[in-house]
Amino acid sequence: MRYFTNIDDILSIEDAIAKARYVKQHPFADQELGKNKTLLMIFFNSSLRTRLSTQKAGLNLGMNVIVLDINQGAWKLETERGVIMDGDKPEHILEAIPVMGSYCDIIGVRSFARFESKSFDYEETILNQFIKYSGKPVFSMEAATRHPLQTFADLITIEEYKRTERPKVVLTWAPHPKALPQAVANSFSEWMNETDYDFVITHPKGYELAPEFVGKAKVEYDQNKAFEGADFIYAKNWSAYSEPNYGKVLSTDRSWTVDSAKMALTDNAYFMHCLPVRRNMIVSDDVIESPCSIVIPEAANRVVSAQTVLKELLIGLNK
Amino acid sequence: MRYFTNIDDILSIEDAIAKARYVKQHPFADQELGKNKTLLMIFFNSSLRTRLSTQKAGLNLGMNVIVLDINQGAWKLETERGVIMDGDKPEHILEAIPVMGSYCDIIGVRSFARFESKSFDYEETILNQFIKYSGKPVFSMEAATRHPLQTFADLITIEEYKRTERPKVVLTWAPHPKALPQAVANSFSEWMNETDYDFVITHPKGYELAPEFVGKAKVEYDQNKAFEGADFIYAKNWSAYSEPNYGKVLSTDRSWTVDSAKMALTDNAYFMHCLPVRRNMIVSDDVIESPCSIVIPEAANRVVSAQTVLKELLIGLNK
Amino acid sequence: MRYFTNIDDILSIEDAIAKARYVKQHPFADQELGKNKTLLMIFFNSSLRTRLSTQKAGLNLGMNVIVLDINQGAWKLETERGVIMDGDKPEHILEAIPVMGSYCDIIGVRSFARFESKSFDYEETILNQFIKYSGKPVFSMEAATRHPLQTFADLITIEEYKRTERPKVVLTWAPHPKALPQAVANSFSEWMNETDYDFVITHPKGYELAPEFVGKAKVEYDQNKAFEGADFIYAKNWSAYSEPNYGKVLSTDRSWTVDSAKMALTDNAYFMHCLPVRRNMIVSDDVIESPCSIVIPEAANRVVSAQTVLKELLIGLNK
Repeated sequence: MRYFTNIDDILSIEDAIAKARYVKQHPFADQELGKNKTLLMIFFNSSLRTRLSTQKAGLNLGMNVIVLDINQGAWKLETERGVIMDGDKPEHILEAIPVMGSYCDIIGVRSFARFESKSFDYEETILNQFIKYSGKPVFSMEAATRHPLQTFADLITIEEYKRTERPKVVLTWAPHPKALPQAVANSFSEWMNETDYDFVITHPKGYELAPEFVGKAKVEYDQNKAFEGADFIYAKNWSAYSEPNYGKVLSTDRSWTVDSAKMALTDNAYFMHCLPVRRNMIVSDDVIESPCSIVIPEAANRVVSAQTVLKELLIGLNK
Repeated sequence: MRYFTNIDDILSIEDAIAKARYVKQHPFADQELGKNKTLLMIFFNSSLRTRLSTQKAGLNLGMNVIVLDINQGAWKLETERGVIMDGDKPEHILEAIPVMGSYCDIIGVRSFARFESKSFDYEETILNQFIKYSGKPVFSMEAATRHPLQTFADLITIEEYKRTERPKVVLTWAPHPKALPQAVANSFSEWMNETDYDFVITHPKGYELAPEFVGKAKVEYDQNKAFEGADFIYAKNWSAYSEPNYGKVLSTDRSWTVDSAKMALTDNAYFMHCLPVRRNMIVSDDVIESPCSIVIPEAANRVVSAQTVLKELLIGLNK
Repeated sequence: MRYFTNIDDILSIEDAIAKARYVKQHPFADQELGKNKTLLMIFFNSSLRTRLSTQKAGLNLGMNVIVLDINQGAWKLETERGVIMDGDKPEHILEAIPVMGSYCDIIGVRSFARFESKSFDYEETILNQFIKYSGKPVFSMEAATRHPLQTFADLITIEEYKRTERPKVVLTWAPHPKALPQAVANSFSEWMNETDYDFVITHPKGYELAPEFVGKAKVEYDQNKAFEGADFIYAKNWSAYSEPNYGKVLSTDRSWTVDSAKMALTDNAYFMHCLPVRRNMIVSDDVIESPCSIVIPEAANRVVSAQTVLKELLIGLNK
């Protein structure tokens, strides 16, 4: 593996799950791979789970880990040629990124959607600059349009908890007071579409995800209907994707909050969320505290997904 | 050992001293214990000594160390159930803390008294949330009411420098321009009360510590009298504990500053302070620069106390 | 080696180059030297290259690395005796620095010129306080008047790329919108004066460096003439040194920008810069993107210079 930014970077769902299983059972078995290799984690946005779990994954693999926080506002890199750089941008991307690449073996980048320009976000401008100019393997620690380490952890979790060969998995929109990126929902859809699960997306009208992420998924606007017979409820808020509403909050309708009545429609489904979660907006207290809530083991699997990816990138270094 | 937050977590003063002595003599002897174990240090308040010494202690033990700075103001966790989280608190404590616990083996927490509510402070609300919800061993890197790693280092230092079996140790209040917590003074009293030292506390009226910390200590309002025959002078400022003055500065009386004239009343006592110290408020230049000042070896022993505690917590993991 | 702050700390240019060559070829050969040794990197100013490269150098040597960011504004240490510390300075330098020294084996310090006082800057007040009070080996990660790790990396790079025994090396001032320290230019001159290269400095009138740094170098005010026959062009902006203009920008004359026409005057010279660089102020796009630009390998050699210095400091610990 040379990059890990979307589903195309894994061989197959089955292969990824098998590799993750091995890593989870043998967390310290591959320290020779990571020895004297440096992981550089670059954060343009703050992070708790991704920061801690990825750092731990690197350390489990025996890597040296360097964390670099870059205030998004302070990261003023010139990207154009021909500009007389006498303003507030002290460095050009064509120097900054190769230099960072020269001080490490693998680079992780976190860079959220900025909601200033849909094309800037959906072209993954920042992440792709690192891929293009760093000269090193790059992986996404959540980028503008996807959060594949989260989704990989979600997949591992579903595989651990599923009670039928082909579970019904429902991604449901839920209300949130602020505008959030589509990244988690996009990634989740992208990966679920590669499984043979029965995958359904439910959200209010206007919250349609980009068609390339929806793919072959069933879209059901009636949340109650979507929940019927579900084995896993994956709740998440996202802002509107479609213009002219890109990045906007269209609804905070709390009738979409996942509560006990809704969960009663399911086949005793597990409740999942990537966290952090706003209680009684996204999900009620009793659901998230119930035995069916697997949000903590889901978060714990972030170490497993990150470590599996880092291991593959390390193997890729030697090829 | 499962937790280290107060004196009840050690077997005995004698045992703690013996263990510290071993660690100091063999700083790198226990790296098998720490191998592949992750220490997460969480700072709600800034720190120089605690941060560096605890990090070094963990590294000496072969641990992986992850430091997380959380701005106290930004740490807006919901703690109540039933709240519709549509405001400025993006996460509930019941998710945030277990997740942090899932990414490490041992957690250190620094969280000062906030002086907003005496009960919030004296119930050690923040520290106890970590104990209750993290699922991992927790130790205090200075909490609202105690600073046991500091006191343990103080004890080690006194044991190294004492010239009589039962030294006279005097904790003296000294003036400071800003309101400081009682944590260091509380802890020092708590531990000294478990030794067989002759332990005296001296401070102006109004600066009485909580009775549970004063314990069997002699309280002497006449500083000069307290200093007579002392072997160790331990200076520290603290704000008032008693209501209605909790957290307030009642006096900045510089006649309480520890100077040469005061030290002349002692039995050639050593001078101690946890640092940082304001010169010529707490102590005069000539006293802190004199051969009797042991503030630097005292600070250096912070590595020893932290490493001894971490070692015991690591041993506890395997039980 | 006990300190590394200027050229006097190395045995000779030849010895330094030979040692660097060994380190570059055997980056992981000396991990026994660094085992259980702690490197403390203290930053009073922000840093990208120095931070990452020095951290990597320490890790390559098997050291434990602790990074401490100290906001220059927040670092309010009292330095005088006799002051009643009831103001905004919470600690005296005579306590703060020895304590930091007690938690590590080697200290790196970054502290830029402040331009408030030429004597404060040129006496290297901050760096020398660490040398005087820490009790530990200290190295400069760029101080007020010099940046020796950068210059050492520059030297390594020139040695790698030079095509003649005695290349002509030209340090040229170039325009920049903000006032920058003289540190890089000073160090570069200091080291070049110890080589047998043909070393020339060129800058507009008023930008004369301190005579002790200019040394035996040829100073040529005509940039075109300076460039004739050059093998290496080392571009850098600096602010005025001479009073009453210390720290001031006297010119932003873009006729000094290094462009293709200027480079055509040279003997197919390599272009060097310490980065970050403002394009089309310091250097044109086409020059920095041309095959003669070696700014990225120059930056990569920062790991080599830092590791060579750290290795010598580690050897010094055992003497």
